[in-house]
Amino acid sequence: MFIPSILSQGSPEQQAKWLPLCNSLKVIGTYAQTELGHGTFVRGLETLAVYDKDTRQFIVHSPNLTSTKWWPGGLGKTATHVILMARLILPDSNSSSSHGSRQKDYGPHGFVVQIRDMGTHLPLPGITVGDIGPKMGYNGVDNGYLRFNHVRIPKDAMLSRFSSITDEGAYIPPPKDNAKASYATMVYVRATIVRDAGEYLGRAVTIATRYTAVRRQTAPGPNERELQVLDYDGVQQTLLPLIAKTYALKFMGNAMMDMYDNFNKDRDAGNFNALPELHALSSGLKSLCTDIAAGGIEASRRTCGGHGYSMLSGLPTLFNSYVQNVTWEGDNNVMFLQTARYLLKAFLAVNQSAAGRKPIQGSASYLEEAITENRSLLPQQQKNMTSNSKCTVTSPEGWRRPQVQLDALKAVAIELAFQAAETLKRHHPHGSHLVFEGAPWNNSTVDLIKLAKAHCVYAMHQAMVARVAAMQHTTTTTLSPSCLAVMHRVTALHGIVCCNEAAADLLESGHVSPQQVAALRIEQRAVVREIRPDAVALVDAFGYEDYLLHSALGRKAGDVYNSLFSMAQGSPLNETEEGPAWQPVLKQLLSTRSRL
Amino acid sequence: MFIPSILSQGSPEQQAKWLPLCNSLKVIGTYAQTELGHGTFVRGLETLAVYDKDTRQFIVHSPNLTSTKWWPGGLGKTATHVILMARLILPDSNSSSSHGSRQKDYGPHGFVVQIRDMGTHLPLPGITVGDIGPKMGYNGVDNGYLRFNHVRIPKDAMLSRFSSITDEGAYIPPPKDNAKASYATMVYVRATIVRDAGEYLGRAVTIATRYTAVRRQTAPGPNERELQVLDYDGVQQTLLPLIAKTYALKFMGNAMMDMYDNFNKDRDAGNFNALPELHALSSGLKSLCTDIAAGGIEASRRTCGGHGYSMLSGLPTLFNSYVQNVTWEGDNNVMFLQTARYLLKAFLAVNQSAAGRKPIQGSASYLEEAITENRSLLPQQQKNMTSNSKCTVTSPEGWRRPQVQLDALKAVAIELAFQAAETLKRHHPHGSHLVFEGAPWNNSTVDLIKLAKAHCVYAMHQAMVARVAAMQHTTTTTLSPSCLAVMHRVTALHGIVCCNEAAADLLESGHVSPQQVAALRIEQRAVVREIRPDAVALVDAFGYEDYLLHSALGRKAGDVYNSLFSMAQGSPLNETEEGPAWQPVLKQLLSTRSRL
Repeated sequence: MFIPSILSQGSPEQQAKWLPLCNSLKVIGTYAQTELGHGTFVRGLETLAVYDKDTRQFIVHSPNLTSTKWWPGGLGKTATHVILMARLILPDSNSSSSHGSRQKDYGPHGFVVQIRDMGTHLPLPGITVGDIGPKMGYNGVDNGYLRFNHVRIPKDAMLSRFSSITDEGAYIPPPKDNAKASYATMVYVRATIVRDAGEYLGRAVTIATRYTAVRRQTAPGPNERELQVLDYDGVQQTLLPLIAKTYALKFMGNAMMDMYDNFNKDRDAGNFNALPELHALSSGLKSLCTDIAAGGIEASRRTCGGHGYSMLSGLPTLFNSYVQNVTWEGDNNVMFLQTARYLLKAFLAVNQSAAGRKPIQGSASYLEEAITENRSLLPQQQKNMTSNSKCTVTSPEGWRRPQVQLDALKAVAIELAFQAAETLKRHHPHGSHLVFEGAPWNNSTVDLIKLAKAHCVYAMHQAMVARVAAMQHTTTTTLSPSCLAVMHRVTALHGIVCCNEAAADLLESGHVSPQQVAALRIEQRAVVREIRPDAVALVDAFGYEDYLLHSALGRKAGDVYNSLFSMAQGSPLNETEEGPAWQPVLKQLLSTRSRL
Repeated sequence: MFIPSILSQGSPEQQAKWLPLCNSLKVIGTYAQTELGHGTFVRGLETLAVYDKDTRQFIVHSPNLTSTKWWPGGLGKTATHVILMARLILPDSNSSSSHGSRQKDYGPHGFVVQIRDMGTHLPLPGITVGDIGPKMGYNGVDNGYLRFNHVRIPKDAMLSRFSSITDEGAYIPPPKDNAKASYATMVYVRATIVRDAGEYLGRAVTIATRYTAVRRQTAPGPNERELQVLDYDGVQQTLLPLIAKTYALKFMGNAMMDMYDNFNKDRDAGNFNALPELHALSSGLKSLCTDIAAGGIEASRRTCGGHGYSMLSGLPTLFNSYVQNVTWEGDNNVMFLQTARYLLKAFLAVNQSAAGRKPIQGSASYLEEAITENRSLLPQQQKNMTSNSKCTVTSPEGWRRPQVQLDALKAVAIELAFQAAETLKRHHPHGSHLVFEGAPWNNSTVDLIKLAKAHCVYAMHQAMVARVAAMQHTTTTTLSPSCLAVMHRVTALHGIVCCNEAAADLLESGHVSPQQVAALRIEQRAVVREIRPDAVALVDAFGYEDYLLHSALGRKAGDVYNSLFSMAQGSPLNETEEGPAWQPVLKQLLSTRSRL
């Protein structure tokens, strides 16, 4: 449960009281934020905590159905306590008393609330709590709902490390860097999500690569042995790019952890400069990486054909459990839009040569180059398709060079920044300048999300190229030259695949010619075929043991069919030879019918 | 179960014996084809049926683990009989008796085999049968496995309408049109799969459209009401194209049923001319349509945010049950390759101006136009990016015209035919001509599948345009002019979306300019916004009742939150207030810990 991490928002006294109780399991806590009516939009939460200064208590209440807490893990039948996010409502000191007791809404704040009796585990008076029912995955967790009917809790239940109230109900706002500090926590959580994306996609590609190397189907000619499924072009060009993406995700996860550590050092020195860029990058990477992993797990499953549909393959469970990540911790589209907002503001500043502006730092600094582009933002009809940069590739092999790939991915991001800015302008009532909210913004999100995605793809490939290059220069590396050569090929494949996926934007930007895109396809196939002999080793290197994968298809020793057969014996339907339907249903059905 | 339809392969006497037993449920049958080791490649099946002419019996045997029958529905604990696909092994009349009893393998044939005792439902001697365990969906069906240990069955168990054997074990081959007739059955099955694709995607978009019209999240400005989720650009541009695709799938399903009926009339007159093209088109459409539906169901689910992850939304079950269609009845990639083989052969005939060839008929006849293209197939470096046809669009609105869209989709298919032919040539050892099998073929499948897909997209949009145009001219139509106008907009959106998805190929072919692609994006957004007011009506028109959708989010009356709350009460965890873990686990855990 999440109480210990969230309790960091409590005062020292609150932490001293609750942390030992949580850590010793004297209480079981969970974090109750999401409601039936509001998820990603936290400011819309409706649960109330109204301060009653006469009793120095809060009255916690669920004013309507949509304010019902919904989804918290372990809430339904397990947790005894919650950290509740509820709107803090205080007496309005500005209202005159003659107008009755006016109140002021300070938005969501955290409160520790006991919800079940410690002796009977029954809900306390005024509390309604239960399980929300089955989910696509994670059915081992009792995700719950929770409602309050005017439940009184003491004043010191409010987590008050940052903001607090006086006994009289006056609000004491948080210090200036509080919001920044909570952003930093989000950056950390997103870094773990990116790292985990590589873990989960890694499991899926391990299973699929091992199985398609064992599985044979269709002889290519008379008297020839049937082909390994992994040796069909389509399967190979699905799985090997996913192996490359898994490595990229793992490198990106490590790079993000480093960024977070560096930021933490800066923060301790009172320097928050890197935070806006880190927040923007981590939001988009959360989305990009979970999209890649969720899509890649399902794509891996499909390469396993019919047996990939069996739960014994491990793949359906992997997909159904993992896919929540595209929604959890901020819906992916909403997260991409955080990145887009940062990028477009930076892009516009560059484009309009705003006086006195600081040059863009960090991952978006390439947008500085956009200013040199001789391209007007509007009108669309005059759009002059010219990335100033031109791809120099003259043969398929040219696409292997990291710089060629990175230049192309950068050109895509710049092209999409132009497109998004144009779309945003077109949706503005006056069409003359950009606003980053309201209808113009909400009517442009497809282009904005595309921009954010391209930016993150570029950042991810940069991270991979840098990390693999560093391997070469590290004196402590344990990688042999032949292993390093494989890592370079995998990196090359990742770059080529990313460019290929962006072919439409590359062509539209004018950075590449149709001939160069044709060469890109040829080279993708060539690199895939070069990596093919190392495919099984590349997934073995992830180090997933059979017990972890729990997959009949993903056995390290390749004993797929025996594993499937023996795992199937565990089906409850196999407990008797005649099966559970014989006595109650089939026996009578078949005998009745035979008397007809 | 499938016995009645498959029994059509039996002789009149066999049908007279078994059909009444099946239809009256005196026996329960299923169709046992797929094995642990072989699925789509039917010719690789390994189960044996060896004829013993002395006893006039077949000895049915599973010679190894991979020959175990695996997957047939209802086989595990329900079926009493199967129609078994096994290799027919007969004495080789050409071998001299001095060399012992030589045998000849005639490949898979069908046999009726009883597997369970009618009085006890226990497996008969020599039979091992059971359930294969849980699947991603369809867990109400006991998909089973089946093994034989030298089981003897009578000679007349072999289905012998088409091929049969003499008492001495001489093979009597099927008449010439037998294979063609079985193709026709496949065309029918695929037509139903295409029709069903529209049904299942229709359910998902109904749920998602209704929910996102009810769900509100985030106020666009101070004191404004939160926006309907369906009014965000990204959600709108996900769901409305899926609504258009659902209509396209339904039109395509109807058109395929008509094609099948027309072919049936021809067949009765002994005319099989349309079969190759019908087989090729139906294979690819099976793949295209199930890909669209499976991807579209999951995309719809994600627009529903967190609540889309709840089983109460109905969407996880829809996805997990439906997604088997991309593998079932021929893996989608393998099916696309059937289409590609037909297209490339036709394309090459056109390109090489083969003497005396007949012009291509039917859906691929547009390839005749490719011959007028001044484009050499090789070498790639000299590729001259010129679709002879050029898109004439000069404004975004121009993209609404069906002919503009169809010309573009045709240009994509021709471009991809060139690309696939070039790739296939490059993989041939001599590079000079094309072969449609072996390593060159297996090493080119990505390009081949892309071609097949583009061909089917073109065919599908043609079908939609034709059906909607016909509505206008039919005197019996019940559609009002305003409804017709909506159908024209939905058709326009479908064409625009298909073109947008093919943007990279359109640009590479030279059929469109970057400016025209930018106009395409503008027009897609414009048409989506025009259709938005009719979105809910367009899904209501599918006519799915609440009991069928079984979704808290998809309620026709929009009462989403009450439905979620009340459906959740049915969770088994909610049977007691304290929950099932309190007595056995939590009570002791919490009390032990509190003594620490």
